[in-house]
Amino acid sequence: MNILFIMYDQLRFDYLSCAGHPSLKTPNFDRVAARGVRFTQAHVQSPICGASRMSFYTGRYTSSHGAQWNGYPLRVGEMTMGDHLRKLGMGCYLIGKTHMIADAEGMDRLGLSPDTVIGARQSECGFDAIIRDDGLWGEGPDGFYDQKRSPYNEYLKEKGYPSENPWADFANAGISDDEIASGWFFMNADKPANIREEDSETPWLTDRTLEFLAQADEPFCAHISYIKPHWPYIVPAPYHDMFGPADVPPATRSDSERDNPHPVYGAFMSNNIGKSFSRDEVREKVIPAYMGLIKQCDDQLGRILDHLEATGAIDNTMIVLTSDHGDYLGDHWLGEKDLFHQQSVKIPLIIADPRTEADATRGTTCDALVEAIDLTATFIQAAGGDVPDHIVEGRSLHPFLFGETPGNWREVAISEYDYSVTKMRDMLGVKSRDARLFMVFDGRWKMIHAEGGFRPMLFDLETDPEEFNDLGDDPAYQNQIDRLYDHLHAWALRMSQRVTRSEAQLERMRTRAAKVGILPFLYDGSEVPEALTARYRGKAPADYTKD
Amino acid sequence: MNILFIMYDQLRFDYLSCAGHPSLKTPNFDRVAARGVRFTQAHVQSPICGASRMSFYTGRYTSSHGAQWNGYPLRVGEMTMGDHLRKLGMGCYLIGKTHMIADAEGMDRLGLSPDTVIGARQSECGFDAIIRDDGLWGEGPDGFYDQKRSPYNEYLKEKGYPSENPWADFANAGISDDEIASGWFFMNADKPANIREEDSETPWLTDRTLEFLAQADEPFCAHISYIKPHWPYIVPAPYHDMFGPADVPPATRSDSERDNPHPVYGAFMSNNIGKSFSRDEVREKVIPAYMGLIKQCDDQLGRILDHLEATGAIDNTMIVLTSDHGDYLGDHWLGEKDLFHQQSVKIPLIIADPRTEADATRGTTCDALVEAIDLTATFIQAAGGDVPDHIVEGRSLHPFLFGETPGNWREVAISEYDYSVTKMRDMLGVKSRDARLFMVFDGRWKMIHAEGGFRPMLFDLETDPEEFNDLGDDPAYQNQIDRLYDHLHAWALRMSQRVTRSEAQLERMRTRAAKVGILPFLYDGSEVPEALTARYRGKAPADYTKD
Repeated sequence: MNILFIMYDQLRFDYLSCAGHPSLKTPNFDRVAARGVRFTQAHVQSPICGASRMSFYTGRYTSSHGAQWNGYPLRVGEMTMGDHLRKLGMGCYLIGKTHMIADAEGMDRLGLSPDTVIGARQSECGFDAIIRDDGLWGEGPDGFYDQKRSPYNEYLKEKGYPSENPWADFANAGISDDEIASGWFFMNADKPANIREEDSETPWLTDRTLEFLAQADEPFCAHISYIKPHWPYIVPAPYHDMFGPADVPPATRSDSERDNPHPVYGAFMSNNIGKSFSRDEVREKVIPAYMGLIKQCDDQLGRILDHLEATGAIDNTMIVLTSDHGDYLGDHWLGEKDLFHQQSVKIPLIIADPRTEADATRGTTCDALVEAIDLTATFIQAAGGDVPDHIVEGRSLHPFLFGETPGNWREVAISEYDYSVTKMRDMLGVKSRDARLFMVFDGRWKMIHAEGGFRPMLFDLETDPEEFNDLGDDPAYQNQIDRLYDHLHAWALRMSQRVTRSEAQLERMRTRAAKVGILPFLYDGSEVPEALTARYRGKAPADYTKD
Repeated sequence: MNILFIMYDQLRFDYLSCAGHPSLKTPNFDRVAARGVRFTQAHVQSPICGASRMSFYTGRYTSSHGAQWNGYPLRVGEMTMGDHLRKLGMGCYLIGKTHMIADAEGMDRLGLSPDTVIGARQSECGFDAIIRDDGLWGEGPDGFYDQKRSPYNEYLKEKGYPSENPWADFANAGISDDEIASGWFFMNADKPANIREEDSETPWLTDRTLEFLAQADEPFCAHISYIKPHWPYIVPAPYHDMFGPADVPPATRSDSERDNPHPVYGAFMSNNIGKSFSRDEVREKVIPAYMGLIKQCDDQLGRILDHLEATGAIDNTMIVLTSDHGDYLGDHWLGEKDLFHQQSVKIPLIIADPRTEADATRGTTCDALVEAIDLTATFIQAAGGDVPDHIVEGRSLHPFLFGETPGNWREVAISEYDYSVTKMRDMLGVKSRDARLFMVFDGRWKMIHAEGGFRPMLFDLETDPEEFNDLGDDPAYQNQIDRLYDHLHAWALRMSQRVTRSEAQLERMRTRAAKVGILPFLYDGSEVPEALTARYRGKAPADYTKD
C-alpha cells in the first residue's frame, strides 16, 4: 500500500461541503470522505504552520521536538516520519511545502552537509524532496522572507512571466487599471490573479504530483503539500468570482468577547491582523477569495483522484487529506490562526484506507479526540511497523479506520503555542520563555493555560459551542479548571526524551547486570546461583602486592 | 584559566573531614575547601551514575536529555560541556569514567563513525578522551558488563599481573588462604586488594592526570573522573586496615521506616541490595573499606595539588571536586543509591576559583540550592561565555564564588529517577513509563512524586533531619504537598527542547516578517510605511492570464 498524505495550508475544518459548509461545494473532498473516515475532532499540536508541521512529521508535541514556531530549526537528529518509514522499506517523499528550517548549526557540529543524502534528509525534515517549495516568496526592504530557491518561481520564469519574482507579481497579484494589484492588499482579493489558471500554484503542484505518481517506486508515502488556501488571498479566474459577499457567513464573534477579555486574547485581538479582520470589508473581500482557492484545491484533488481511479492505484493507496491549522477569517475578532478557538486549532482530517478491513467505516465520521501527531503513528502501522512509542507520541488511528474501539484512548487533546517572537509578547510584558500557551480540550471543556502568571481561559463547548463565554475567572468552574490542570500536569510530566531505548530494549536490559558480573550485594556469594559468581571463585591465591 | 573538574564515584557528601566526618580525615579535600567554597546543598539530577553524569555533562535535567538510567544512550547531537567550551576556545578532555553509552543507532542514521573526530566526540559525551575507563569490568556467564576495551586492564597486564581480567582478579580481589577473595563478596572487604598500591585504580588515574597536566594545551577543562570509592569495596594496603568496625557510625535508620512504608520505598528496601546492607556485618566490613578508598582518593588528590602548587598552575586553575551521587551504606535500610534521602541525592561540591574576585569566599560554605547541572553553566562562564540558557538548564555558580547574591535563585532542587529496568518495577507492577520518580526539595521540605498512581512522600528536614518520618499521607501537610506539586508542575512545563534558537536569535526574528514582505493584514497598504510595500507597487499592469 502507498500513502498519499495531502496537506492544505490554513484550510478550515468547516470549509468543505462534507463538513456542512452551506455554499461551498467540494465534491472531491467529499469523494474521499465517502471512501473513508472523516475525523470531526482533529487538532493540531500548534496553530501555526512550522510548529504544527514539525509535529505532523515527527509524531511529537511541539515542546518535545522544540521547533515551536515558524523559523525555529528542527534539531538535528530528531526522528521524522521519513526515518521511521524508510526503516520499514517505504520511501517517503515531499512534493511541496514543509516550512522546515534545517538546524544548520547542529548539522555543522556533526559535519553534515546538505549535499549528501543524509544531510539532505536532515535539511528536508526527513523527506526525500521531489519538490520543495514553501510558497511564501514575500520580498521587502530586507530582501526575501525565504532564502531558498523557488522551483515555482523558476517554472513561471520558464513559462515567460516577465519578473524576477513572478510569484509576487503574477501568481499573487491581480490585474488592475493603473498598477499591479498586489495580493497582499485585501482590497484586491476579488481581482483575478494575473496568471493563467493552469500555471497557478495549486495546479502546478498537482502536475508535479501526477508526474511523481507516474514513475514512483512503491511502496511510498508521498507528502503532497499545497500552500493554498493560505494567504495571499487571491485566486485566478474563474475562481476569483465564483463566490461573493453573499456567500460570506456572518462572523462568529460577539461584542462580549471584547469586554474585559483575558489579557492574552485581548493582545491578539488588538494586533494588526485581528484589527484588519474585524473590518467587514476585509471579510467580504477575503472570504470569497479563500473559498475560490479551496474550490480550486478541490478541482485539482479531482485530477489526482481521477488518475488514481484510471490506473487502479486507488485500490492500493491510503489517501489522507488534512491541513496544518485553520483560519479565523474574522471570527472572534481575529485573523490568521495562533489561538485555540476551533476555527484555528481544529483541522479537516479525512482518511480513506483501501483495505477491506476498512470497508465497514467508509463514509462515516469519527468524533474521537485526534491529534496531528497520530498520523506518523498511523503511517508506521500502515507500513507494517510497530509504533516506536518511546519516540512517537501520537497513536495509530487504525482502530478507528477498522471500526474498532481502541483501549484507553486519550482523554484530552493538547495544543501549544509559542508567541515569543510576536508583538503580543511586548504587549503582555512576558519573558520569552513564558510566552507559551497550552490548550487542554476534553471534547467538551477547553482550557487554555498561559505561562507568565495569567489566569486560565475556559470554554464549555456544550453550552457555548461558539466559544464566546470565557469562564476562566468564574469560581463556579474551579472544579473543571482543576481537572483540566491535572491533565495538563500529567502530560507535562510525560516521558518525551527517552528516545534511545525502546520498551523491548528496556526489557532486555532488565536482568542483564547479574549475568555480566555486576553483583553489588553479596556477602559471601550464597545469595545467587553459583554460576553467577564462578568467574570470581576457584582461582589459586598468590600475593601480588609486592614486586 | 584552566578547569580541573574532578569527580569521584559514589562519594557521600558527609565522608570528608571538611564536611564533619568524625573519624575520616581528608586533608587534601579540606585543602581545596580552604581555597574555595564548599556547597552544602548540592544535589544530583538523578541518583545513579549514568543519568547523573549525563546531566553534569549536558547541563540538563535527565528528562530533558533522555538518558535517564545507566545504559540509556545519550541521543546523538545532544550538546555537552565539550561542545560549549570548545566554541569558546577551551579544550575539554576526559581522563576516566563517564558511563556514557553512544547512540549507535542515531550515529548510524547520521552517518557518523566513532573513528572520526566528530564521531568520537559523539561517542565520548563531547569530550576528547585522553583515557576512557568506566572501571566496571565485571564478568559473568553472559560475558562482560562493559564491552569496551579497558585501558586499566591493559596497564595491569603490561605490569605483569597474570590474568585476562586483572581488574577482577587483582585490583578488586583480595589475598586469601585458599582461593581468590573476590571484592564482590562483602566478607572480603577487609582484605587488602591483591595489587601493589601504586597500580590500583586511583593512583593509576592520577598518574594519567599528571601526564596530561605536563603537556596540556591551555586553556583546558579536564574531567578527571575516578571510579572510586564506588564498589567493589576493596582497597589495597595500607588503606585496607586504616579503619575498622569501631569507625563505622551507627546506621541512620529507624524501625519505624519499615512499618507500612510507601510502596516505592518498601520495594527498594526489599531488594537484594537493601537487604544486604541492612545486615550489620555488611556495614562493618564495607564501611571501613569505603573509608579506605576515600582516604586513598584524598592522598592521590594531594599529589595533584602538590603538582599544581609546584608548577604555579594552581593560580590559574579552577579546581572542582564532586561526585555523581552518594551511597546509602545501610542507612534507611538501603544500599547503593537510587532514592532521594540525602545520603544518596546530596553530593560533595567544592569549587576553588583562583581569581581575585573569589578571594572573599575562600574557605566558606554556601547553602544555596545547587544542582549538578550548574557546573556546565559555571564552566561556560569561566571560559568567558554567556550561558546559552535555551540549552543549558543549570545556572552559573559564579555569584556564589564571588560572594554575590544572585537574583531569583531557584526555590527548589529537582532530581529524577527512572527504575524501569529494575526489579522494583515488577514488584510495584507499574508500566515502564510510569516507573519514574521526581524529588522536589526546597531546603526544608522534600517531596517525592511517583508516577503510577502512588501518594507522594514528604519529609520535613527541619524537624526530622534524618528523614525518618514520611508525612506524605498525613492530611495535615496537604498545603506543603500542594505547594511542592506547584513547583513540580511549573518545572514540568519548562521549555527544555527549544534548543535551536537562543534568546538573541529570537530577538532578531521579532520584526523580521514585515521587512521581508510578509504582510498578511493590509487592506490597502496604508497600514504600514510605504517602504514596506514598495515591492508590490508601481508596476505597470498587463494581462498575463492568456497566451
